This record gives sequence, structure tokens and C-alpha cells, in this order.
Amino acid sequence: MTKWVYGFGRGAAEGRADMRNLLGGKGANLAEMCNLGLPVPPGFTITTEVCTAFYANDRNYPDELAGQIDQALAAVEQSVGAKFGDADNPLLVSVRSGGRASMPGMMDTVLNLGLNDTTVAGLAARAGDPRFAYDSYRRFIQMYSDVVLGIDHHHFEDLLETHKERQGLTLDTELTADDLQDLVAAFKAKVQDELGALFPQDAGDQLWGAVGAVFGSWMNNRAITYRRLHDIPESWGTAVNVQAMVFGNMGDDSATGVAFTRDPSTGEKLFFGEFLINAQGEDVVAGIRTPQPLTEAARENGNGNGPSMEGAMPTAYGELVDVYQKLEAHYRDMQDIEFTVQKGTLWMLQTRSGKRTAKAALKIAVDMAAEGLIDRAQAVARIDPASLDQLLHPTLDPDAERQVIARGLPASPGAASGKVVFTADEAEKMAADGEKVLLVRLETSPEDIHGMHAAQGILTSRGGMTSHAAVVARGMGRPCVSGAGSLRIDYKNQTMTVLGETVNRHDILTIDGASGEVMLGEVPTVNPELSGDFATLMGWADELRRLKVRTNAETPGDAETARKFGAEGIGLCRTEHMFFDAERIVAVREMILAGNLDERRAALAKLLPMQRQDFVDLFRIMAGLPVTIRLLDPPLHEFLPKTDDEIAEIAASTGVDAEKLRQRTVALHETNPMLGHRGCRLGISYPEIYEMQARAIFEAALAVSAEAGETVVPELMIPLVATRKELDILKERIDAVAAEVTGETGAKLDYQVGTMIELPRAALRAGEIAQTAEFFSFGTNDLTQTTFGISRDDATFLEDYVQQGVIEKDPFVSLDQDGVGELVRIAAERGRAAQPGIKLGICGEHGGDPSSVTFCEEIGLDYVSCSPYRVPIARLAAAQASTREPQDES
Amino acid sequence: MTKWVYGFGRGAAEGRADMRNLLGGKGANLAEMCNLGLPVPPGFTITTEVCTAFYANDRNYPDELAGQIDQALAAVEQSVGAKFGDADNPLLVSVRSGGRASMPGMMDTVLNLGLNDTTVAGLAARAGDPRFAYDSYRRFIQMYSDVVLGIDHHHFEDLLETHKERQGLTLDTELTADDLQDLVAAFKAKVQDELGALFPQDAGDQLWGAVGAVFGSWMNNRAITYRRLHDIPESWGTAVNVQAMVFGNMGDDSATGVAFTRDPSTGEKLFFGEFLINAQGEDVVAGIRTPQPLTEAARENGNGNGPSMEGAMPTAYGELVDVYQKLEAHYRDMQDIEFTVQKGTLWMLQTRSGKRTAKAALKIAVDMAAEGLIDRAQAVARIDPASLDQLLHPTLDPDAERQVIARGLPASPGAASGKVVFTADEAEKMAADGEKVLLVRLETSPEDIHGMHAAQGILTSRGGMTSHAAVVARGMGRPCVSGAGSLRIDYKNQTMTVLGETVNRHDILTIDGASGEVMLGEVPTVNPELSGDFATLMGWADELRRLKVRTNAETPGDAETARKFGAEGIGLCRTEHMFFDAERIVAVREMILAGNLDERRAALAKLLPMQRQDFVDLFRIMAGLPVTIRLLDPPLHEFLPKTDDEIAEIAASTGVDAEKLRQRTVALHETNPMLGHRGCRLGISYPEIYEMQARAIFEAALAVSAEAGETVVPELMIPLVATRKELDILKERIDAVAAEVTGETGAKLDYQVGTMIELPRAALRAGEIAQTAEFFSFGTNDLTQTTFGISRDDATFLEDYVQQGVIEKDPFVSLDQDGVGELVRIAAERGRAAQPGIKLGICGEHGGDPSSVTFCEEIGLDYVSCSPYRVPIARLAAAQASTREPQDES
Repeated sequence: MTKWVYGFGRGAAEGRADMRNLLGGKGANLAEMCNLGLPVPPGFTITTEVCTAFYANDRNYPDELAGQIDQALAAVEQSVGAKFGDADNPLLVSVRSGGRASMPGMMDTVLNLGLNDTTVAGLAARAGDPRFAYDSYRRFIQMYSDVVLGIDHHHFEDLLETHKERQGLTLDTELTADDLQDLVAAFKAKVQDELGALFPQDAGDQLWGAVGAVFGSWMNNRAITYRRLHDIPESWGTAVNVQAMVFGNMGDDSATGVAFTRDPSTGEKLFFGEFLINAQGEDVVAGIRTPQPLTEAARENGNGNGPSMEGAMPTAYGELVDVYQKLEAHYRDMQDIEFTVQKGTLWMLQTRSGKRTAKAALKIAVDMAAEGLIDRAQAVARIDPASLDQLLHPTLDPDAERQVIARGLPASPGAASGKVVFTADEAEKMAADGEKVLLVRLETSPEDIHGMHAAQGILTSRGGMTSHAAVVARGMGRPCVSGAGSLRIDYKNQTMTVLGETVNRHDILTIDGASGEVMLGEVPTVNPELSGDFATLMGWADELRRLKVRTNAETPGDAETARKFGAEGIGLCRTEHMFFDAERIVAVREMILAGNLDERRAALAKLLPMQRQDFVDLFRIMAGLPVTIRLLDPPLHEFLPKTDDEIAEIAASTGVDAEKLRQRTVALHETNPMLGHRGCRLGISYPEIYEMQARAIFEAALAVSAEAGETVVPELMIPLVATRKELDILKERIDAVAAEVTGETGAKLDYQVGTMIELPRAALRAGEIAQTAEFFSFGTNDLTQTTFGISRDDATFLEDYVQQGVIEKDPFVSLDQDGVGELVRIAAERGRAAQPGIKLGICGEHGGDPSSVTFCEEIGLDYVSCSPYRVPIARLAAAQASTREPQDES
Repeated sequence: MTKWVYGFGRGAAEGRADMRNLLGGKGANLAEMCNLGLPVPPGFTITTEVCTAFYANDRNYPDELAGQIDQALAAVEQSVGAKFGDADNPLLVSVRSGGRASMPGMMDTVLNLGLNDTTVAGLAARAGDPRFAYDSYRRFIQMYSDVVLGIDHHHFEDLLETHKERQGLTLDTELTADDLQDLVAAFKAKVQDELGALFPQDAGDQLWGAVGAVFGSWMNNRAITYRRLHDIPESWGTAVNVQAMVFGNMGDDSATGVAFTRDPSTGEKLFFGEFLINAQGEDVVAGIRTPQPLTEAARENGNGNGPSMEGAMPTAYGELVDVYQKLEAHYRDMQDIEFTVQKGTLWMLQTRSGKRTAKAALKIAVDMAAEGLIDRAQAVARIDPASLDQLLHPTLDPDAERQVIARGLPASPGAASGKVVFTADEAEKMAADGEKVLLVRLETSPEDIHGMHAAQGILTSRGGMTSHAAVVARGMGRPCVSGAGSLRIDYKNQTMTVLGETVNRHDILTIDGASGEVMLGEVPTVNPELSGDFATLMGWADELRRLKVRTNAETPGDAETARKFGAEGIGLCRTEHMFFDAERIVAVREMILAGNLDERRAALAKLLPMQRQDFVDLFRIMAGLPVTIRLLDPPLHEFLPKTDDEIAEIAASTGVDAEKLRQRTVALHETNPMLGHRGCRLGISYPEIYEMQARAIFEAALAVSAEAGETVVPELMIPLVATRKELDILKERIDAVAAEVTGETGAKLDYQVGTMIELPRAALRAGEIAQTAEFFSFGTNDLTQTTFGISRDDATFLEDYVQQGVIEKDPFVSLDQDGVGELVRIAAERGRAAQPGIKLGICGEHGGDPSSVTFCEEIGLDYVSCSPYRVPIARLAAAQASTREPQDES
């Protein structure tokens, strides 16, 4: 028979901390605290499997459940010495949810359950305090009605306020037992009014109602949204904890509080928390009364209100200090605890790992390693790699006022303010004049790169987390809010309207790329301080990881940033980004408009010295670290104007015939440019383009080799290969250029030629391709696009898909390990079978996504490459992946 | 030691007919004829492996080759009783290419090799005919100089003409021995002049020169082009046949000729051919003299010129008849033979299976089966499935004059003439008035379907063999020439220019969709006659095949055509094609422009009865055969206008607000529509669309079931599935609609829900998907697009790729078995593992491509589905695939 219910009580429990999947976090830790001998009110946990069975079975419970609950309840009754529903000596219980992952405030709780018109009198008699008993009852009715019966709590608050007004009272504590008894009657009448039925008087009915409501709350909208945002699978379910009530509201020797064993904001080793005398837990959370500080030190620092617990309840406080130190030592992590003092006796209601800021997480991990509580690998494992993003960018001053006018996607972290401009050219021009600007576009394209670089931040009204704007901004470390759909951007009039408000060109806006908020005016920001803890922990991570971490970069600035963040090479230098510079785009367009090979060569000859200088700069900065350079990838029409106006403008400014420009634009137009004439297909059609690029690379490598006295070994990467033959043809041509350069200079050249694996066919035929390629770099962006048949630029429906649960995560953010991942795995296996030492890396956006990095470690890639600002994240994720034991993480 | 040379002579040979891969077709058949005891001049074959080794080894021969040739040559000398290069009794040889596959006229031949200034005298003495000897010598010098030395033959023809003029002669035969001796001197002087060296006099040098030239000709442009057009791999190489010369030009008792054992044009069982007295083979081929008929019957019918061989050389003719009958009985196929009569003696120079028209192939196969020469499976195997296309469409009258003005791709077979129109609307209007029109477009889109249907044929200046125009035209059986790049189409002025010539609207053009030619004016056509042989053979094919053949059809006309051609169901009914009808597109647009769900439902309600009637029609026509209906697939913007002009026009004609229309068009715009918001993604976003379609299908099925007294079992197919969850969600909704319809009508519904497998991810996750899907249909068009990352609409570079040998075949025409095929195989395996009986079919363009059909048979699919006009091709290819023994076909 399945065990659906696990009991716990003083000094013993059927569960353990490591049974969190079955008992939920709260239930497992209550059991663990019992096992540690800490004072925990007895109770039992209904497992998460009941929740799963409940939903799998049309909201019906397993047959054996009722019997098991009865038995567990009897044990609690025995332990407490009271009886559930008993008129004289009633047992009251709390009913709380508790999933595998913490979902604070997302699900429902019922306290004081077991009270009814009869038991309330028994409670009053036994407590010797009718006021306490009726206060508990009226709280119970309100909470139960809200959570279980679906009667909004404002009804009861209104009644309470009306009553207080009538009696001329201001505080709830001024209510007498009689007042509360009247309120109970009024509350019950309200329930009958709203529900057409009496408030349930049977304690058993109350219990089943509350259990059903908790399970039901697993599917409420708040919970669904929270799970989606935090990647928590629906299948996990929640447990339900039923526990004997203890009361912090039984007078001035009673209290309730919450605490962190260290400061969750800074990580300092200070006991930190707050409490309220004569109150129930909900009062602390609700924020109706201002809580008091726990410690004398905090009180002296002016935190909180009134006397400290240390001062007011020294005995209970002493016990609490003992308990928290025991818990931190036992769990070897900072704990977030809840407690109640009932008539001087301390009761522990919860312990769990405390949430903390990224900064605190670093300090706590490094401190605990120093204290010998954990080792370095554990310290490294404690930090959520994604949280590092918070530390690397300026953030909004948390104390500053802000007027949010719109909300988009948090596309690239950091906060930025600037004057609104609507064109990349103006952004560049104003930035050159020392102005701070914010580039606002419907969406961005490669032509906007210079403006994005010049701007403080980027705001778009279209596009998702992996739109052009988002990807490029993250790469540059520019804050970006994308897809702010409520903005109406009018290029023609150079204005933007939102909710009837008009923002004009040069008005100042602030964006928060970490929250997606768009604010009027300039909101002050604070700059990141990379503490010594950061460097210490990253150093430990570097000792632990096997995967190398490279960066995707093409500008000297990005390369320098990435090196500062610890990049060990460039995994992807996108040469086309070097072509959009104002000086160069003219030559690029001449090349595209060339009527014949000679004209094309002439245009390319103009680009050669510039490309060479690009590579000289990069090789110098990277100082001998590997540099992988992808030859031209985008379709040529990306370099041409789109609209008639743009054509006219460019024709006028460059002296090219407008009609010729138009015809070429039409001729090069593609219905699906992502699947068009690009990548190595261009290299095959126009050999001279790749030849120019190869020459620039080789000449730069020789120049920097000579300068540095150390051979630079560039890695030339061919994009969009689908067949080995494509690579064969292009490698032969590159080798020919190398032979030419060697012939001209007499210097020895060392280089590698490899390929992107970014098409399903290339992955499948990797065995063949590896016979020519000297390395593979998995271009998981395009591989995801083709494997799913989804264009990143058009994937507006993906967010809906995630919300509707069609897919768990956006596959452009986190690698789809089942589908795309199988192709990567196949390619790695087949590539290695054909050429055992072949170098394997990944250079899609996924290179900076922690779970994708874990996957890369699992299949044994040699490196990941990501945008500069994600390098620390990748380093940490790689270290965690290296040290992770195979386990059920889900 | 590798055997590089295979000898043959009277009554014995080292080779056999089945060694064609090694000896080439000609060499293998020469050996076989020797083994049959037929009169063949002795010789030897240098194998195709020498050719392969030659190219693999920088154009060097294997070391052992020279010794083996010497030995083989000695055997020939012994057999003939003459000596190569001997002054008194010289052996002369021919040197000819001969590959595995016939490449007629594509490679080079040298005759009379071994003649020089000395041996010519010996030949003259032994033949007693100096004129013959010098005639042979001057022919040899001209041919050798042309083929081996690279001196164009016109130089020699000029000298010959000059000489004849000077002597006042008109015919070559009037030249005397002295004339010819003078010409030999003049030819040699010309060679020295052009070459700066003497004409080679050493017979051995001559032989090696000729062998080298034949191998070299494997890589000449003609040969490369021919191979590309006929799918012959470069790796096959050619063999070289060196054979003792026999002379048809030794007087009036000598002759040379070619013959077919049956009529290659009609297939009739008539000995058919022509010959020339006192001539060498080249004279027949060159067409300088008009050849004479072989048989008296042919002469009486007025074929050829002069007396027949039967009349003029009765003995040799009698021997030839014996030989041809023996050959046809031995090879059990119609033979194409070459022979020479030297002084009354018959010599056989070649036999091979004769090329024939599709019509002749059918008749010969059926007749030979009736004669007991072959069995039915062999008869079926004899027909090239692709050739059936010739039989099903009107073709140009071969005798008609034609003025070709442009050439495009032969996108859909058949010939058509009509008045040029540039819009689909005008095509429809004029066709309704009884006019024949030809629709001329830059490219077509789904909006043009009604015009394509109305037109006699379609001509586009852009797009490949698998462009929209090509695919749709083939589906409809409309002739189409696509991608005729030299056309300049000017919609604005309604004209088209090509090579300076202007074609105006309503001018008449003719296109030949089988050749890609575009002609001025109306060229007469002849209609196909489907002979009894066609029906007989297709009947045999049906008995043999395992694979079912369905059709891709959505209109009643197409469905009827397909049934006439033997379709066993509909494998793909594209419901969106039903939405472009003028009456419906308005409702479709209302649906797209709907501001909310109610408006959308209202628009869909208008479409419901029309869709239902569509399905009623189809179910009636298909009379119980399975019908697979794909729910809406294309992105919604395909139904909206593109340009501002179109928007204005539609706004005006439908009363929709132009600005609203424009905004919706902008909002729905996609960068890569192929990878956009389409397929099941629409179904997920707009449940009501698929619900309407499902209801239409179910109601139609019930209506026709009631009518016919037999249950119609529709197959509902969900497109573009990437995850099982998508299918789960949509199947649940379809099941709900079915339950509703059942509830309303009380009738029992039987149906299946399945999915397209057309994304790499779907193929990889087929095991999961098969847990929900009741059938898979492989959409190999989209699967090829995503696996290769190539958009069919933009694949302009694919033709270059084929020409440059980057890929062997256009993967949209013939399934890429290595890449796309692996995904199909994986999906079939995983799908069957999850659900053993799952029905598997293919509905891409590949369903009508013979080699792809073979692949489908190999992996055990249940059916292929193709456009109506390809149904017979698929039936035949399926039969061949079923009966094919595993063999090295390559």
C-alpha cells in the first residue's frame, strides 16, 4: 500500500530532509527538525504524490488517504493531549502547502482549523482567555472563507472596520472578547449570505475542505505564473502539512517571528529578523503592525520598532539562538526560519535555505568555506550562475522614485537613462557629442549596430528575448528592454506614445533591462562593485571546471571586456559585424553592386586593409589565446537598403544609381532569408569574398606573430555547411590563399579550418564533415531555428507556448536537450568517431545559459562561447557542471 | 596484380555482359557477342578502373597497364594475322570510349589508328586499293588531329573543299587515290603548321595518344553536362575499347550500318535501320550521305534512299537478320546494333539496349511479355517511370516550326499555347469567356491559384523546379516553364521583353514544359493517347507493388484526375487552397481582421458550409477511399494583400478600413514565414479555426456516409508539429468537436487524427508523438527545407550547386537519403517502436519521384502520395521497388 501520509512530532519523524520531492520542502524540514530534537508542534504531511494522483484522477483522492489521515491525526491528538473537534479540549491545526521548490506566498494556508461554535468555548475555557479564542475563531472564519469557500476577504475586513467605527476603536487589539464574539456572528451571517449555506461546523469537513483548497491552489493563476517564471514543472505537485496550532497571540509572553541566520541582503554573519509580541504569523507577513527587531544590536542600529526579542524575552531568545546555530551547522547554509513563542515556550514552524541577493550569496558561500562549514566545490555550487548578471551591470538605485510607463521583456540586464532617439545614426552622432542617448526602435537590424553601440540602452516595441536587439545588446552588455508592445512608435513624427502619453525625441527615459520596466525621466543608478568575494569564488570555479569558456566578440571593446571577465579565447568573431561601419558599408555595397568579378575584387580590395586591421587588433588583445573567426554569414541583401526612401538616400549619398540599387535589392530579396543565400553558400558563389577575408586573417596573424614573437593560430570557421563537399571546396580555396600568403612573405602560417554545425543535416553528416573540418562549433541558435522550424525573428507565439505549457522553456534561451540536443550529441559522437581529437565547442546564445552549459559538459564538449557579460556565468556554470554528481535534479 | 585489360576475339572473351561496370557497356557487350559466337573483330577493353585510377593519380596510368596492353595487342595481331605498325601487313585499330551508362556522342573515338606514311603503302598493297588506303589515312589524320591533338576539324574540311574545287569535283567519292595522297600531304603540313611538330608516325605513340584522349574526354564539358543531366556519377569513369578495324569502305561489296531490332519510336516489331555502301560508320552518323533502308518493306514504304540491304546484299543481310534475332533473344530486349560488311563479310561492332520513346518502351515490354521473352515483372522493370510523363500530357507537334525566344526550367511537362496575361484575375476572367490564356508572372503565390487553374500554362521568370509555380502546376497537370531568367516582366506596362523583343499582353506564346522552351505564336500540339499497352502494364505494376499510391488533391477536378490515374486515396488535401476562392477569401480576411473571438467565430461560421461542401465533394469522389485532410497550414498573412495598392484595392472592394488592413498586414508580417506562425501554431493560437475545419469534415463525413451507406473515415492531419504536446492539445480539441457533432446528430463518427512529420524535431521525437498520432505523413518538402536550411522559394543557388557538383541532385526533386532520409528512417523506426501498427506515408513532392519511392519501399512506408499526374509514375516506381533485388545499381 502506498504511504500517502508521513507523521512528525517531538524528537521523531517518518520523514527526512532529503525527502523533499515527496514531502515538499516545508514537510521535509519539519521532519528533519523533529529528528534533530528541536521543538516542533506535531503534525503530518500529505505527500506530493497525492497531489499528482489528485490531478491525474479527475480531482479524486486515493482510496487509502482518508484512513491514513485519521491515523496520523490520532497520533497528533495523542501527542498534544487534545482532540480534534472536541468541545472541551479541542485540537486546532494549521493546513499549509509545501512544494519541492519554494513558492512563497503563491499558495494558500489555513490557520486555527478545528474551531466552531462549540470548540471555541472549550478553547476559551482551557486558555482562560475568551478574547483569544474568539479572535482565533474570527480569523479562522475569515481565512477559511477566503481560501476554501471563495468569499473575498474584503467582506470580513469591511465588517471589522464597520464594527470598530461603531465602537469608536482604531486598533484590532482594542476589540474585546464581546466585540469579537459579535464579529464572529456577523462573519458567519456573511458566509451564509454569500454562500447560501452555513459556515461548516464539523472539524473533519473543515479539514478536507482545507486540504482540497491547498491542492486546488496548485493550479491557481498565481501559482501557474510563478512556476512558469521559475521553471518549476507542473508535475511536481505540492504537499500539504497539517500541524497542531501553537499560538503567538496568547498574551505578552507569546510572540511570533521570522529570521535569517545571516543578512540576506549583504551576506554578513549577523542574526537578522523581526518578531511581534502577542500575534500570529500572518500579522508579521501582512505588515499591518511594524515588527520589532530580534537583537539588541539591530535595535541600537535603529532597525525595527520597539524592544528587541533579546531584551524582551531573553530565555526564548537564547533558545532561538541555540536553535538557529544548530540549524545552520546542520544544513550548512543560511536558513530562513519561522517560530512562535507560546506562553514563553519556543516552537519552530519552518526552516529552509534563505533566499538572498547575488551579493549575499557570494559572501555567504565564501565565508562558509572559510569557516569550514562547506568546501570550495560546495561554495561554488551555492551560487546561481544566472544571478551574477545582477552584479555585472549598473542597477537602479532601489531608493529612487520611478514612474513606470510601460513594461517589456527583460532582454539585457542593467539600467540605462538617456535622450530618446529613433535612428541609429542620430544615436551615434549625439553620443559622439557626449550625449547619453537611448535608442528606441520598432525592432533593430544589423544596420543599427553602430547606434546600439553608441546608445546607453535599447528599447524596442517588437521582438522577444532572442530578437536581434536582445541578442546584440546582451553581447555588448547594453541594457535592453524588448517587445514593449504598448509603445506606439511613430518614426515619421519622431514620437512615441504609450497609454495616451507622448514621449518626444530627446525626452529622457530610463529602462531597467533586468525587470523590463520603462520609466519617465532619469532614475538614478548604482554601479556594480565586484567584491573580493566575486574574484575568490570565480577563482575556485576556475580550478574546478573542465570546460573552457570563450567569448563571442568582434570589437576590441567587447574582446577586452570579455578578457576582463575571464574569457579564454574568442569562440565566435562574426566578421559581418565589421562591415556595417559607415566607412566600410560603402565598399561592401560596391562589392554587392559590382557588375562583374573585377569590380567585385576592386571593392573587396578596399575592405582588405580594414579587415586586416580588425584582426590585428583582436589578435593583439587576445595575446595568443585562440580566436575563431566566422567568415561572412548573412545574405548580401542585409547590407542593402530596404525601402524606397532608404534607397534614394543612399543613392544620393554614395553616388550609386538609384535604379541599379533598387534592381539589385529586388534581385537579392528573399522570402526566407534565414534559409537563403548565405553562409558558405555565399562563399561558394563568390569565392573572392572568403579569399579576401582569409587573406586579411593570415596577414594579420603574421603581423601579430612577428610583433609578439609567438605564433598566432587563427581558426577560420565556415558557416551554414550542410554537406562535406561545401567545406572541401572552401577549405581548398583557403589553403590556396594561405599558400599565396606564405609564398609572398616567406613566413610560416599555422591555422585551422573548421565549421559551424548549425543545420540538422550537418549534425547528421558530421562523420563525413569531420574528415575535413579541424573543429566543430555548434551554432545552436540556427540549429534550434531549423530543428524546430521556428524563426527567432518571428517567434511571437513562443511566449504563449511557454505560458500554455506547450513547451517548458524558450528553446532559444535554454537548449532543447531532447531535440536539438540529440542532434548535437549525434554530431559530437560521429565527429569524434571520424576524427577522435576534433575540437568541439558551442557558440550559440546557449553558451551562456547554465543548464545548457551543463549539457555541454555532459556530452564532453571542449568549450562554450558566449557574449562577454555572460562569461562569468559560463565559468561558474561550467564549474558546477564539472562537480555535479549525477542525480535526480528534477 | 590488378587486371586492367580484358581481351576478346572470335568465339571467346575474357569479359561478359554482366561486367558492364568494369568494361563499360560497349566492352561488355562486345565480349558477350564473342562468347555467343557472333562475328566480332578482335580487340581488348581497358577497364573503367584505369580511368578512375588515372584521375585519382594526377592523370598517370597504373604501372602494369603498358605491359597488359602489349600482351592484348599481340593477341589481336595473332588473331587478325597482321602486325601493329608493320610496313607490309599493318594492323589498324579503332579506339572508342565506353562507359557504364550510354553517353552517345559525348566522348571521342579514333578510327584507322596505326596508319602512317609507311603502313599506308602496305595497306594499299594488301587491299589492292590505294584509294581506300589514302582515304583511310586522310580520315585518320583528320580525326586524330581533332580528337587527340586538338586541331579543329574545320581546317581539314577547308583543305578538302579547296582541293575539290580546284579539281572541279563535287563528291568525296570522286576523289582519286592521287587526290587523296595530295590531301594527306596537305593535312600533315597543316598539322605541322598548327602544332609545330610532325604528325605522329609511331603506331604505339598514336595508340597511347588516343587512349589518353578518350580518358581525357571523360572530363570534357559535353560529358560533364551530359552526366549532370542524366545523373551519372563522375566516379564511374569510362572504359576504352581498342579493336581491329574492319572496313565498310573497301568497295561496293562493303558497307556499314546501324539498326534497331524493333521500331524505337512506336515499338512495333519491325527490323529497323539504315546503311551505306562503301562507307565507314562515321558517314552514317554524320548525315553527309543519305542512308539506305535495310529492308525491302521499308524501301517500299519510301523510307531512305536507294536500294535496301535486303535487296543489294542478300547474303550479308540474311546473316544480319540471324544475328539480330539471336541478340534480341539473348538479351531479351530491343537492341541497337552497329555492323560493318567488309568485302561481303558481316562484322558486328556493337550491340546495346536501344533507346526508345516512352510509347515504344510500353509496347515492347508488353509485346515481349506476350512473346514469352520476359515475364511481367521484367516488363514492368523495363519502363522508366519518369518517362510516363511524356504520355500523359499534350506535346508539341514534332514537325511544327517553332521560334524559341527564351528557355527556362522544364517545371511541369506538357505544351500549351495561349494569350499572355499578367494577372491571375485576368486569366480567370478571359478563361471564363472561353479564351486560352498563358499566365506570365515573376513568380506565383497562393493568391494566383485560381488564375493558374484557368490558364493553359504558366510561365515565370523566377523560381526553380520546386518553386510555388512548379509545384502547383505539376499538381494541376498544367504545363509550366519556371525561372526563365532572360524575361523582363513589367507588370506596370503589361509587357514582357526578351532579347530586345517585346511581347505584349494578349500576344500568343507557346511553352513546352518538358523542355523549358518559350516560343512565339501558337505551335501545334498533339494529344496523348493512352494505349492499351499503358493500361496493361500499369495493371501488372499494380499486381506487383506493395506500397499504396495516394494523391495530393483538394479540388474535385484534381481528385477525379487522380482517380482516373489510379490513386488509391488522398494523402494530402491542403485545406488552405480552398480559401483562395474569390467568394471565400473575403470571409477569410474577415476572420483574420476580427478584433475578438466572437467576430472571428462569425467569420468562420460563413466558411463552415463552404468547407463542408468541399469535403462532401471529395468524399463522394473518393467513394470510401481514405482521405487525409491537413488543417490550415500557411501563416495568416498569406491571405492578406502585400502592397499598398493591393491594400487600397481590397479595402475598396470589400469595404474594410484600409488603415486597419494595413496595420494587420504589418502586424502579421514575418521575416521568415516558412519558420513562422503557421501550421499547428495557428491551431494553438486560434482554436476556433481548426474547430470549424474539424466540424466541416465531420459533418461532411456523416452526410456522405448516410448517402453511401458506408462509413467515411476521414483522417485529420495536424501540420508542423514539433512537440507531442502540440498534438495532444489539438487532438483533444478535435475529439471535443467530434463529441459535439455526435451529440447533435446521434450518428457514430469514425476518424483518425495524425500528424505531418516535417520538422527535424518531430522526426527525432517521433516515439513520443506516436503515442498520440494515429498516423504519420512525412512532409518531405518542409523537412528538406529545415534539414538543409534551404528555402525552396529562395534556392536560386541550388542549380549552381548541382552544376558545380556540390550536391548530386536537387534535394527538393529527389529525396536526400543521407540526410533527410535518415530523419525519415529514424522517425519511422521510433514511431513504429512506440506504436507498431502506425500508418506511415509520404506526401512531399518526393512521393512522385521514382528513386524516392524506392527509398519509401526500402524503409517500409505504407503509402506514397503525389500530385495527380504523377500517380502512374509512383505506381510504376512502387512496383519496380517491390520487385527490385538488392543489387549494386550504381
